[in-house]
Formats: sequence, C-alpha cells, structure tokens
Amino acid sequence: MDDRTNLLRIPARATRALIADCFVAAGLRQTDAARCAELMTEADLTGADGHGIFRLPQYVRRLNAGGFNKQPNITVTKTAPATALVDGDNGMGHLVMSRATNEAIAIARETGVSWVGVRRSNHAGPAGLYAEMPAAHGMIGFYAAVANANHMATWGGADLLLGTNPLAIGVPSGDAPLVFDMATSIVAYGTVKKYALRGLTMPEGWFVKPETGEAITDPAKSHEGILLPMGEYKGSGLALMIGLLAGVLNGAAFGRDVVDFNADDASETNTGHFMIAVDIARFVPLATFTAEVDRHVRDLRASKRLPGVETIRLPGDRRAECRAERLRDGVPIAAQLLAQLDKLAAELKVKPLRGR
Amino acid sequence: MDDRTNLLRIPARATRALIADCFVAAGLRQTDAARCAELMTEADLTGADGHGIFRLPQYVRRLNAGGFNKQPNITVTKTAPATALVDGDNGMGHLVMSRATNEAIAIARETGVSWVGVRRSNHAGPAGLYAEMPAAHGMIGFYAAVANANHMATWGGADLLLGTNPLAIGVPSGDAPLVFDMATSIVAYGTVKKYALRGLTMPEGWFVKPETGEAITDPAKSHEGILLPMGEYKGSGLALMIGLLAGVLNGAAFGRDVVDFNADDASETNTGHFMIAVDIARFVPLATFTAEVDRHVRDLRASKRLPGVETIRLPGDRRAECRAERLRDGVPIAAQLLAQLDKLAAELKVKPLRGR
Repeated sequence: MDDRTNLLRIPARATRALIADCFVAAGLRQTDAARCAELMTEADLTGADGHGIFRLPQYVRRLNAGGFNKQPNITVTKTAPATALVDGDNGMGHLVMSRATNEAIAIARETGVSWVGVRRSNHAGPAGLYAEMPAAHGMIGFYAAVANANHMATWGGADLLLGTNPLAIGVPSGDAPLVFDMATSIVAYGTVKKYALRGLTMPEGWFVKPETGEAITDPAKSHEGILLPMGEYKGSGLALMIGLLAGVLNGAAFGRDVVDFNADDASETNTGHFMIAVDIARFVPLATFTAEVDRHVRDLRASKRLPGVETIRLPGDRRAECRAERLRDGVPIAAQLLAQLDKLAAELKVKPLRGR
Repeated sequence: MDDRTNLLRIPARATRALIADCFVAAGLRQTDAARCAELMTEADLTGADGHGIFRLPQYVRRLNAGGFNKQPNITVTKTAPATALVDGDNGMGHLVMSRATNEAIAIARETGVSWVGVRRSNHAGPAGLYAEMPAAHGMIGFYAAVANANHMATWGGADLLLGTNPLAIGVPSGDAPLVFDMATSIVAYGTVKKYALRGLTMPEGWFVKPETGEAITDPAKSHEGILLPMGEYKGSGLALMIGLLAGVLNGAAFGRDVVDFNADDASETNTGHFMIAVDIARFVPLATFTAEVDRHVRDLRASKRLPGVETIRLPGDRRAECRAERLRDGVPIAAQLLAQLDKLAAELKVKPLRGR
C-alpha cells in the first residue's frame, strides 16, 4: 500500500471519540459503545485498516436496519469444566468476543486450557485483537472465526462457499507479545476493500473469474470473482476446518448459510468464533517460557538474510511499529472515507471528525 | 508423482510384518514394535510415503546408535484438570504420541477439552495419523509438532532455523473423518526425499539457494538450499508459532536446538508435540454435528468447478482413496528402497519383504 497521497492523519483519540459517539447515537449502551470504539481504534492503530473506523458507516447502517441487536443480553453457558458456549444475542461482535475471551481466560486459570465457542455473534474486527488478550495474563490465545461473507471457493471450485476464515495466535514474550494473524485467503478481504477505496490495482493471483479462471485486478470488480486461498489447497482446507470448528460446532453459520453482511444490513449473521486459552505456567514457569521465546526471537532476527531483504519481520512486528507510528502521527484516513464519516456524523448529529 | 515405473506393489500385511520383526530384532518390546508397525503401515496406506516403511532403515539405525530409547518409560503428568505433560523418555515418537492422544481423549471426556503437551519424543510420522484418532471418540483432534530438522528459514532469512512444523485437524463426519494435514512448508520434506529416491525433478519455488535466492530443482541438492514456506510469510509465521506451542511450551527443542535426525543418529532429539481434543457433544449433539458436516461437504462437492478441474477434493479424500487402492493393490515400494529393506532384513536376520 504505497498510495498515501489522499490520506489524512487523524489522532486516535479523535477517531475513538467519533466511533463511541456514533454508537451511542445509534442506540448502544455507553460502556458498550466505548468498548467497541476502543477495539476498533486498536485495529486502526495496529494497521488492520479494513477493520477499524472504516467499518463504522456499515456498522451504523446495520444497527439502524436491525441487523445488530443494539442492547444484547450476552449469555455464557458452562458446558463442561473447561468449555463454554457463548450466545452473543446478535450483539456487536466486539462485545461478544471481549466477553468470550474474558471467559476463556478465567476458565483456563482453573483448568489449564479452555475452549470457548461462540454463536450468534457478529463481525468482530481483526483476529489478532482477541488472540493477543490472553498474553497479558500469561496465557497463549488461539482464536478463529467464520468470516462474514463467502469470497472464496473450495480449491478447484467456482461457487462462493468459503470465507477468509482467519486464525490468530498470541504468545507472550519478555517484550510485546508475538501475534500471528492470518486470513486463510491469499489476502484479507479488508485489504481488497482498502484497495478499492484508494483506487489501487490488485496484483494478479488474488482474484479469478469463475467462468474462465482469468485474473481480476480491478478491486471494484472483485465481487465478480473468486478470492484465492493462501497456499492453494492448504488455505481452502484450513478455511473449511475453521468453518467446522468455529461455525458448525457452535451451531453458527457456515457455507451456504453465511449471510453476506456487505450486501445485507438487516439479517442476523449468526457468526461463530472460538477462543482457546492455555495457561503457560501449567507447562513451564512463565519466566522460563518468555526467556526462551526471547532467545529464539533473537536468533531469528539475527538470521542471515536472502539477497535484497533488508529486515527480518516476525509476527507482531508490523502491528507494533504501526501502533507506535500511528499513535504519534495519527490514523490515516482516505479522503473518500472522511467524506463518508462526515456524512454519518451529520446524520447522527454528533461532532465531525475534524472538529475533535 | 507420476514416475511409477520402478515401483513394486507389496501387500500391507507384508510391510507391516517386516517393520514389526525389524523393530523386535532391534530391541523393541513386542507390543511396541507392533504398534509402530501398525502406525507406519497406516502412513503408507494413506499415502504419506515419506513417513512409512521408507523411514524403517533410518529408525533402525537410530535404535542401534542409541538415538532412540528402545524400551522407554513414558510418563504422564497431569498439570491441571484439563492439561497434561507427557515425557516420552526418548522413545519412538509413534509410541509417545499414541499415549499422548489416548490421554487427550480421556481428559477431554471429563473436561470437554484437553491440551496435552509432549516433550522428549521423536519423529512420529504424518500429523494426520494422530489428529484423526479422537474422531472415533466423537471428538475433534488438533495436533502439531516441531519437525525433526530445520529445512526452512524465517521469511526473508537465510539461516535454517525453522522446520516444516506440521498442523493437522481431524473432524468426525457421518462417513470417514475429515483429516486436514498440512506442512507449513510449501511441500513436506518427506515428499522431497521421495523425489530424490525416484530421481524426479522438483518444481521451481520449493527450494532456493541461500546465497543468491535462485531455485534448486534437483532433490539431491536440496540440502544446499532453503525450503520455502507455504503462503510466503504466513507459513513461516505459523511454523514459528507451532515451534513455540509444541516445542518451547513443553521444554522441547525448537530453532537452533533442533537435532537434524537425518544427519545425526545418536543424539536425543527432544521432539515436542501437542494434541488438543474437543468433545463435540459438549457443544452440540454429535449426530447433529456430523449431519451438518455432511451437509456442508455435499455442498462443497457439488460446487461448480473452475475450467479444467475434474473433481473437488476435500481434506481426507486422497487419504481415503489411497487407502482403499493400496489395501487392494499393495503399498508402492521403489526399487532403491526395496534394496535397502532387503539389506536391513539380512542384517537383522529377519525374513525379507518378498518372502512374506
């Protein structure tokens, strides 16, 4: 992403405040609005541009259209000593996954590991956001979700039956946690939307036409195509398995039942996720673990490099760099998005972004 | 793999019997030898050619050189209600992982989910073998391991610090379980060894020279190169995270500490694995789950296809087809491997393969 010409820089406290005010104006409880704003801003700060304030107009549209429950009663059913099933009551995914992750951490403290399944949730932003949370408690987080639209086909297929179903793993270190966050598609769909918004051309190998298998490089035409999986059949197989574990296991949507939340603002999505938390100290003392992680990270960073490679990047590096840079310089907002946000602020009668 | 000219077909009962006899002659307990033979034959039947009888000469070499403990005392320490740490006492990996998987299933029956970490184990064959086991108990299996040699570098790097660290997930259906089994490298190293044995040329994009980044296509020269990860930085990141979860978390080897078991027959490898088992009935009735899995599988199979694609293949299809075909026609054994096995049988004074 190198087209920065039409990007403004807005301080994170301003984007966070706009998001929170819009959600309150749209009918969310004050604390829920603040939590969603916090997590969406964290997405923006850590470089998940397709998951932060970019989604605000769409989320408000869904709240207005009845697609989200504005004031959900999220319930947790303990189904065994180490498992729970969370029913999100169709609330904002951020609220549901915050609750589910807290539950996973609390259970794992007692039982060493926990698996919390989630049904009736919604789009919750970048996977890394939740996988990272257990790290602050000396735990490993392992998160996956069924994506909210089917942009992929199974390998060799031409019907859109699979989402970009992401997987994320967070691991504490002596420094910032390592956060691995991967879409099972060759690229995250949020990135495609960002390309469209910025008028950029996509590389070949991202999308193909279902009829001919030819490449599509215009992001505005991506809806006519099939998003290809990461690593050919591997990404497609992993997207399927995540669909079964995060969707079917929880009685949540997968495959043909997935509601395309980009096209439909009103229908409940019944989004599924799962979170595994592992209490490190049940296996090895936490300090031993983080020291060993640090040692291996040092080895990898000090590695000889292939010709033309300047820096070795490890999972979480880009997030951390981006976070520091954007806290200092502000969140980049495309002119087109800014116009959408101004329109939204006017409609909801809240202060616009640039007045904050 | 289309060079079938120098392949003989040997019945699975004959390969299984040879493996068991060789292991007993090499000093394993009768039941342990039988268990290893069973699992290695299952690897051969299901198409994991780099993990079956192909490994027998190397395993026997390691047993003779003291690299494996012939009669290990495998111990299980319950570290929390839902977690356990298995110490393999440097026994054959197949024995250690069989024990660990049984433990994972037993714990998950009580607590809904279990996480069993393993240290001081060894190469245990294809990941799918273990991920599939919980399915027969109405459970999901989720397995990963630190590979027994570092053939990969971190993305952009030129030092061999990462293995092909595999990940496998097994899910029951109304029919055979779905088994997803993926190396985090672009190709499994066993496949490379198979190419070498059969004198085949590797495609570009599998190995590069560390000094220049140029492709290596001669499998005999693969040891001079770097095996590339699946999906570029994604495969490398996932290999690292698996290394931390299956290695470091268990006090097992990772990174610089990995012993290359292809080059060193005598040193203990301290191989790490983990197995997660999830009891499906704690989330949704098992029959509901398998019926839903079947429905989604039907949808995917009936999918329209891209031009030139004959059949949609799902995780586990190739295993199942291969198993049926090889049970009928026998396990394919390359002439060069057969010669090695004849030599081994003579050394151990057991009946050769073709006399069985």
